Amino acid sequence: MSQVDKQLEDTKAQIEAEIPSDVSVTDVKYEGPELVVYTRHPKAFAQNGDLIRNLASKLRKRITVRPHPDVLSDPREAEERIKQVIPEDAGITDLDFHQDTGEVVIEAQKPGMVIGRHGSTLREITQEVGWTPEVVRTPPIESSTVSNVRNFLKQEREERRDILERVGRTIHREEMADEQWVRITTLGCCREVGRASFILNTAETRVLVDCGDKPGAEGEVPYLQVPEALGAGAQNLDAVVLTHAHLDHSALIPLLFKYGYDGPIYCTEPTRDLMGLLTLDYLDVASKEGRTPPYESAQVREAIKHTIPLEYGDVTDIAPDVKLTFHNAGHILGSAVSHFHIGDGLYNVAFSGDIHYDDTRLFNGAVNDFPRVETLVMESTYGGRNDYQTDQEDSERKLKEVINRTHDRGGKLLIPAFAVGRSQEMMLVIEQAMRNGDIPEMPVHLDGMIWEATAIHTTYPEYLRDELRDRIFHEDENPFLADQFNHIDGGEEERQEVADGDPCIILSTSGMVTGGPIMSWLRHLGTEEESTLTFVGYQAQGTLGRRIQNGWEEIPISDRGNGGGGRTSTLTLKMNVETVDGFSGHADRQGLENFVKTMNPRPEKVLCVHGDERSVQDFSSSLYHDYNMRTFAPKNLETFRFK
Amino acid sequence: MSQVDKQLEDTKAQIEAEIPSDVSVTDVKYEGPELVVYTRHPKAFAQNGDLIRNLASKLRKRITVRPHPDVLSDPREAEERIKQVIPEDAGITDLDFHQDTGEVVIEAQKPGMVIGRHGSTLREITQEVGWTPEVVRTPPIESSTVSNVRNFLKQEREERRDILERVGRTIHREEMADEQWVRITTLGCCREVGRASFILNTAETRVLVDCGDKPGAEGEVPYLQVPEALGAGAQNLDAVVLTHAHLDHSALIPLLFKYGYDGPIYCTEPTRDLMGLLTLDYLDVASKEGRTPPYESAQVREAIKHTIPLEYGDVTDIAPDVKLTFHNAGHILGSAVSHFHIGDGLYNVAFSGDIHYDDTRLFNGAVNDFPRVETLVMESTYGGRNDYQTDQEDSERKLKEVINRTHDRGGKLLIPAFAVGRSQEMMLVIEQAMRNGDIPEMPVHLDGMIWEATAIHTTYPEYLRDELRDRIFHEDENPFLADQFNHIDGGEEERQEVADGDPCIILSTSGMVTGGPIMSWLRHLGTEEESTLTFVGYQAQGTLGRRIQNGWEEIPISDRGNGGGGRTSTLTLKMNVETVDGFSGHADRQGLENFVKTMNPRPEKVLCVHGDERSVQDFSSSLYHDYNMRTFAPKNLETFRFK
Repeated sequence: MSQVDKQLEDTKAQIEAEIPSDVSVTDVKYEGPELVVYTRHPKAFAQNGDLIRNLASKLRKRITVRPHPDVLSDPREAEERIKQVIPEDAGITDLDFHQDTGEVVIEAQKPGMVIGRHGSTLREITQEVGWTPEVVRTPPIESSTVSNVRNFLKQEREERRDILERVGRTIHREEMADEQWVRITTLGCCREVGRASFILNTAETRVLVDCGDKPGAEGEVPYLQVPEALGAGAQNLDAVVLTHAHLDHSALIPLLFKYGYDGPIYCTEPTRDLMGLLTLDYLDVASKEGRTPPYESAQVREAIKHTIPLEYGDVTDIAPDVKLTFHNAGHILGSAVSHFHIGDGLYNVAFSGDIHYDDTRLFNGAVNDFPRVETLVMESTYGGRNDYQTDQEDSERKLKEVINRTHDRGGKLLIPAFAVGRSQEMMLVIEQAMRNGDIPEMPVHLDGMIWEATAIHTTYPEYLRDELRDRIFHEDENPFLADQFNHIDGGEEERQEVADGDPCIILSTSGMVTGGPIMSWLRHLGTEEESTLTFVGYQAQGTLGRRIQNGWEEIPISDRGNGGGGRTSTLTLKMNVETVDGFSGHADRQGLENFVKTMNPRPEKVLCVHGDERSVQDFSSSLYHDYNMRTFAPKNLETFRFK
Repeated sequence: MSQVDKQLEDTKAQIEAEIPSDVSVTDVKYEGPELVVYTRHPKAFAQNGDLIRNLASKLRKRITVRPHPDVLSDPREAEERIKQVIPEDAGITDLDFHQDTGEVVIEAQKPGMVIGRHGSTLREITQEVGWTPEVVRTPPIESSTVSNVRNFLKQEREERRDILERVGRTIHREEMADEQWVRITTLGCCREVGRASFILNTAETRVLVDCGDKPGAEGEVPYLQVPEALGAGAQNLDAVVLTHAHLDHSALIPLLFKYGYDGPIYCTEPTRDLMGLLTLDYLDVASKEGRTPPYESAQVREAIKHTIPLEYGDVTDIAPDVKLTFHNAGHILGSAVSHFHIGDGLYNVAFSGDIHYDDTRLFNGAVNDFPRVETLVMESTYGGRNDYQTDQEDSERKLKEVINRTHDRGGKLLIPAFAVGRSQEMMLVIEQAMRNGDIPEMPVHLDGMIWEATAIHTTYPEYLRDELRDRIFHEDENPFLADQFNHIDGGEEERQEVADGDPCIILSTSGMVTGGPIMSWLRHLGTEEESTLTFVGYQAQGTLGRRIQNGWEEIPISDRGNGGGGRTSTLTLKMNVETVDGFSGHADRQGLENFVKTMNPRPEKVLCVHGDERSVQDFSSSLYHDYNMRTFAPKNLETFRFK
């Protein structure tokens, strides 16, 4: 008998000793980080909520109870009973029974009403039918990403159970190492922005944190191929942790599965879906640009299949000596500060990922409240001594002025925007401005992946700013569903109609004018003197967006991707060009400092990463001088040992 | 055709273009770092010494010319002619003809006379017989190590040629990496003494520097097993460099061959032989102490077979982007400061290994004169702020007093000493004291490996201090051959005779009284009140030597290893116990500082290693404050990136 089987048998005996003798335990298994207890008496567990809570705290594990297949009621009968128990307002849209695990997945428009206060409705369901309910939200805006991911996971359910069991047994293996140490190796995003990637390494465990690409420098990927970095290869990793879905953090996650990785990806649920959306688009863009992408869509599916979603605040065992907890990072939907507790009080490391310290319209500000953090790996995008941004209120005022001026001229406002994050922030600003009468009501057209990304946002309102979430939950005032928002899904024909019509606002990808439908909009509107092109995000060196900002007026436009044959013509830009700063998803210098300054206790060491050379050096030396911490501005491919 | 073959063909054409048209080149091959040129006209090359010199500087390679087998004269005839050419005083003891390579190995008591001024006699030999002569010294004291190594290499000659060719082709491969960087990973001897081991790593190349054990902590070995350290394993290393033969630097070199390593070991010739002696003894001691050693003698032979000996000052290509140069380190016979020049002027790193900065009787002081060193990895054994040692003159005076006092009482002087280094230094001090009449003439008995180690020293006088070497070379006054030195080779019987006899001095291993013949001497002399036990070297915590120094009088002595059955009895020590400091093979704090201070230019960065926590911290912060360098006191398993 293997050591893990022995351990499970002991656990089963322990459980049996704790619960009433007339409640049976038929099997005990690991499923990822969770312990699953099978019983012939699911109703007994459901009746007494304390039973599971006590077991969980006794065993120091996350516990799920499932019915033994023999005692499952007939799905058709069960369905009827479930629909009786759940209030009609919950808006059930799907019920899916899984005989093998005794689970019933309930998709509803209002998951909160399915769950009930402290889970009371869920427990009632089990008491009634024996099945274990699991609840997901029906996307308020239909999202093909969300439904594709859900259908795919349903279809791969059996393999996924195997994966989860394997991962669970690995997490709960006996520790082998007879030493204790903690190291971090930098594989990317040091003294640069892009290709975020780190290894967190103990004597027992090896965790990869992020694995991104470098926008504008496709050849510069994380140093996975250096043997010293990944050891004997990707299959040596215990876990991969993804802080958020932006491609400079996620793009090469699927590649790991080509390199032999077969373990879990830990991230939040929205990060999983956005990673799916963005990496598939990454493949699409590469092929449109005639590049051979480093992996195929099959590997994206592998990544999704291997994802174990975690919620903010869940303390999760991801290895015998490592516990991971995600906290809101305020940067984009599902973005997470990742806190690692290592050993039994040995050491604590937090990776900030990308953060926004202050609240935005979309998200609460980043969490920096941890019981202990000895070392912080800190983003420094705006860490330079002069990287202070305009106040968001001023920015919004300026944006509204530009909108009004354009509208008064009878022109249209074209905003190039990143699909994930900036677009939704803009939508909220515009929706409120219209509601308050600060700007006239007019259609707001969303082109490219923006609509789909917005749909994903509305699927996970728990991850949005408190006030926004509450509006969506309780007041049925989902601002993303406002009438003025229109999804451009009619292609060139619809764009022509919009271009020929009345004043309006258009949000379109790509955010740096490097391709996508924004090119088509430029063809339609570029020569209109009354219209305005408005930049609201960072335009990187070398992009067409930056060139237009710098005053270029002769613009090369290819008709590739719009049914054309890739012919490039030149457009003479007549539109007004405006830039409105202050809508960044990143904390500015002040925000970064505040994040570190207000930590309690403060970390002993800070590694300043994810910023250009000047930014990380500035930020590192300021933290050292002002707060007397040991700070570093690492290079890629260095290893720091902390214990 | 492989890229290396293509390159060799180009080189052959280049050589043919440079030399007179009537001189043929039949083949061009790599043998380790050297380029071997085969010719039907070896005499033409021998006649014109400039021919090879010009080629070497043109091709920037070390060149050896060898005759094509067809043109070789008959060995019997050749032998006669060679003996006519070489002066009789040279003392030829062996001639060994190798038909396959056209080499003749000449073993002689005075190699200098075989070589002649600037190699004139060697060239004369080739002109006479066509064969390429190679000269080795006949050990003035018979050394079983030296003769075993030489015989073994003769016997493995064919396989060794294959190894050298393979290594040569690897060294001269085309560079593959499209980036440039330089990293050092610490695998041992950081904040501790023992298990010296580092990886020097470029984008192209991976070099292991040292691979030692940790005396008194057999379980604590270098971190070779950590996948991130060695990458995909020992077979990924391009080269292993050994700074000197002490076991805390060399003990686990043979283990690499068990881990799949199959490449070269670079060290000096005496280091190779001493490594053979000491690692075989390491296996012997382990088995006597009932431990299973991590490898067998077969791996020691592999290590010797893969050794490419280098001389001090030779600049040697060891990889496409790395040149290695050894310099005298003054620590033990053959010890080397290892200087690495990386890329074409990209970066320079020096590893001090263990050093003695000032001259000793045995060795010149360490060399610290390099054209460029950006980073120095520096030993810090005596780096603590109070680690100043007694002046050697004072130490010698004190030793002579102890000897005289003991002799006057009619007692014997017993000195526990390390076989390699300290013993030979003692022999020189004692020999001179007797010659000068400072102490009475009396027999000096050498027990354990001391005799053998001394024989190896006399085989390589080029590695000894100038004055000492000159005495051995020119004046026939080899102090190690003085009459008073006696090798104890008659076992217990001879020891009994010595113990029963007149006053004398006994040098015996082990140096820290942890086993070996010193235990037997303690049984013989321990109860003699007129005799003196004198410590001249460092006694580590936990050793019997340290306990006796601290005043223990009841000493447990096992009869194992002396024909006994391992029974332990207790001896009550009546001998006088004295300690004479100042004979260390390591630079003291002042010497370490001087080594760094007098470098010109000084390094930008210094990694202080090979010292206990306090020593490396003290030394590191002093260098930082006094000389404004960036200094580090690394932990094991850290990686520093320099470019």
